[in-house]
Amino acid sequence: MSPLGFTVTHNDGFARVGRLDTSRGTIETPVFMPVGTQGTVKALRQADLIDLDTSIILANTYHLWLRPGDELIAHLGGLHRFIGWSRPILTDSGGYQVFSLAQNRVVREEGVEFQSHIDGTSHLLTPEGAVEIQDRFGSDIAMTLDECCPYPVGHETAASAMERSFRWAQRSREKLLHSRELISSQGSLKTLGQAQFGIIQGGVFEDLRKRSVHRTVELGFEGYAIGGLSVGEPIEVMYNVVSQTASLLPINLPRYLMGVGTPEDIVECVAHGIDMFDCVMPTRNARNGQLFTPYGRINIKNAAYAKDNRPIDEDCSCYTCRHHTRAYLRHLFMAGEMTAGTLNTLHNLTFYLDTMKKIREAIASQTFEKFRLSFLNSMAGLSP
Amino acid sequence: MSPLGFTVTHNDGFARVGRLDTSRGTIETPVFMPVGTQGTVKALRQADLIDLDTSIILANTYHLWLRPGDELIAHLGGLHRFIGWSRPILTDSGGYQVFSLAQNRVVREEGVEFQSHIDGTSHLLTPEGAVEIQDRFGSDIAMTLDECCPYPVGHETAASAMERSFRWAQRSREKLLHSRELISSQGSLKTLGQAQFGIIQGGVFEDLRKRSVHRTVELGFEGYAIGGLSVGEPIEVMYNVVSQTASLLPINLPRYLMGVGTPEDIVECVAHGIDMFDCVMPTRNARNGQLFTPYGRINIKNAAYAKDNRPIDEDCSCYTCRHHTRAYLRHLFMAGEMTAGTLNTLHNLTFYLDTMKKIREAIASQTFEKFRLSFLNSMAGLSP
Repeated sequence: MSPLGFTVTHNDGFARVGRLDTSRGTIETPVFMPVGTQGTVKALRQADLIDLDTSIILANTYHLWLRPGDELIAHLGGLHRFIGWSRPILTDSGGYQVFSLAQNRVVREEGVEFQSHIDGTSHLLTPEGAVEIQDRFGSDIAMTLDECCPYPVGHETAASAMERSFRWAQRSREKLLHSRELISSQGSLKTLGQAQFGIIQGGVFEDLRKRSVHRTVELGFEGYAIGGLSVGEPIEVMYNVVSQTASLLPINLPRYLMGVGTPEDIVECVAHGIDMFDCVMPTRNARNGQLFTPYGRINIKNAAYAKDNRPIDEDCSCYTCRHHTRAYLRHLFMAGEMTAGTLNTLHNLTFYLDTMKKIREAIASQTFEKFRLSFLNSMAGLSP
Repeated sequence: MSPLGFTVTHNDGFARVGRLDTSRGTIETPVFMPVGTQGTVKALRQADLIDLDTSIILANTYHLWLRPGDELIAHLGGLHRFIGWSRPILTDSGGYQVFSLAQNRVVREEGVEFQSHIDGTSHLLTPEGAVEIQDRFGSDIAMTLDECCPYPVGHETAASAMERSFRWAQRSREKLLHSRELISSQGSLKTLGQAQFGIIQGGVFEDLRKRSVHRTVELGFEGYAIGGLSVGEPIEVMYNVVSQTASLLPINLPRYLMGVGTPEDIVECVAHGIDMFDCVMPTRNARNGQLFTPYGRINIKNAAYAKDNRPIDEDCSCYTCRHHTRAYLRHLFMAGEMTAGTLNTLHNLTFYLDTMKKIREAIASQTFEKFRLSFLNSMAGLSP
C-alpha cells in the first residue's frame, strides 16, 4: 500500500488539479508549500498558516539536522510534534543547502563531506543518512539526496551529476524499502507513512533529463521532483526543461518543481503539468519589503507610499490588507520593526495561496489558458 | 467637562481599583500599558493586543515625531488611525528619550536642543511643542515635558530639574488650556478629548517630591505621574519615594508610575496606591529570551530546556503555552528566528496582564496584602 494517494480530478491542457492524500490530511494540487526552513515559516506562527489554509509546509533537513538535531527531534516525538504542526510536512534531503550554504564541500561517491555554516563542524551526508534523518523527523514526504550543479555547466559535468544523483536515488530507495520491510515485520507503521520522491537532474540538457526520468522512474518512487532549475538559467530555458521533463513523468503521480518560483513561474509551470511548488520568495521578499499584488509588485520602501492610506491591495482579504495602510507598513519597515516582516509575510503568502486557489478553479472550469494570459498580463502592469 | 473620568471603585489599604473612562473605552486600573514605541508593540500585531485584552497602549512621542513625523500622522488621520488601533493611547512627551537616546543634548529654559539618533538632524523640543505634537497625534492621554535627572545627583541638581519641570508643566498646561479654548470656540472637540498628566520630579529627595506635588497639583491636571524613578536607585529607595509621593497626590485622580517595572515592582507600587504602569521589560526581555512565570524567571537559552517538552508555564493560557514546548522555543531562539520574539512576547505580556487582573481581583475582594506576599514569595522561587 502506498503511503500517498494521488488522484487527478481535472485536466485542462497539460495543467491538472489533483488530490494528494496523506495520513495527516489532503492536499489540493497544484499546491504551494511555504518554506519553514528551521521549523517555522519565518515571521509567522503556526496558527497563521492554519488561518491561511496552508495544507503542507516544507522544512529543511540540512538546518534541522545541524540544529537542533534529528536525534533530539525524534526524542521529542518527531518534527510535527516538535514544531506544533499536525498537517503534512515535506522535507528536502539537505543536499541543496550543503551545495549552497555549507563550507569546504567535498563530493565523493559515498556522499558529501562539508563543514557546518553554523559552527564549522565536519559532517558527512550520504543518501542513506538523508533517508534516516528524514525518517527520524517523520515527515510525510521525504526527498532523495541528489548532486546539484551550478549554472552554467557543460554537458559532461551535468551528465556526471545526473548519473551520480541516479545512483544516490537508487541507494536511497533501497534504504527506504529496507526500512519499510523491517518496520512492517515489526508491526510498526512509522516509516510506512512516509512517501519518498525521486529527483530528476540533467541541467538544461534534454537528453540528460530524458535519461534521468527514464532511470529514476524505474525505481518506483511515490512522486517525482524536477531539481537543478532556477539556478540562474534564462527563464525560457527553465520553462522548456520543465515542459519537456514533466511530459515524460508518470501521469498518475505528483510532480514537484523544487525551489520555483515567482507567481509567473508557477502559473507557467502549472501549464506544463507541475503539481507542487516551494520557494522562499513570498516570505523572504516580504521581509525585504517587496509585496505582491495582482497588478504587479510594490516596494514598500518607496517614498510614494509614505502618505498612502490605501491597503496594499483593496481586494485582498489578508489580515494586513484588512487592517493596515501602505503608509503604516512603510513606516514599520523604515523603522526596522519586526512586525513589518510579519505583516508583509501574511500578505505575500496570502497572495501565493490565493493564486494557487485561482489556478485550481480555472483548471477545474476549463478556463486555465484564459486565466494564465490574464494573470501574466495583469502582473506585468504597474502598481495602481 | 474633563476628557477623562476616573472612579475609584475599591480600596484595600492604599491599593485601589478604579475605572478610567475615555472616549475610546474604559480602562480598569491598576493597569499595565504595553509599550508601542514606534506605533507597534514590538513583535506583535494589534490583533494580538486585542486578544490579550489590552485596554491601553503607550506610544513614544520622540520616536514618532522624528519618524514618520507628527505632521504626516495628523495628515493620515491621527495616531489611532495610522496604526490601526481604536482603543486608548497614552503618549509620553518625548523628554525621556531626548535625555536617554539623543545626542549632543543642550537643556535651556526654552526647551531641549538635541540631535536625532536616527540621522543626526538638530531639533528643539519645547513644552509647548510637546503639547502640539501630542495634539497632532490625537492620543487620549498626553504627558508634559519634564527634565529627567540621572541617578545619583545631589539635592541642588535635583531641585533645579524639579523646578524647571514645574515651569515647563506650567507652560504645557497653559498651552493645552489655550488650545482647548480655541477649539471649543470653533466648535471642534478634538483636543477636548485629550487628557493631560503632570509629572512629579525631585529625585530621591522627600522635600523636593513634596514641593513638586504641591505645586504641580495646583496646575489642575487630569492625572499625575511620578517620573525620574527606576533610573538606577536602590529598589527600597524607589519604593519609599513612590509611597511618600503617591500619598500626597489627589485621591480622586489617576496616578501613573512611569517606566516601572518588574512584576514585583508593580505589585509593591500598587500597594502604595499607583494606578498605571508602563515598561519595556515584558517585551524587551521576551526578545532576549527571558520568560516570566509565577515561579520565577526562565532563560530559554539555557541548555536545560533543550529537551523540555513542557510549556513555559502549565497554567498559562497564552497562545505560546497552549501550542509550544520550551524545547521548541529554545530552538527558535538559538536559531535566531523572529518567531521566537513573537511567541515569547505573547507569553510575557499575558503574564503581565494576567498579574494586573489578579491584582484587581485581590483588591476588590480585600485580599491584596495576602496576594502580594504570596506573589512575591512565589516569584522568588526557582523555575520548576
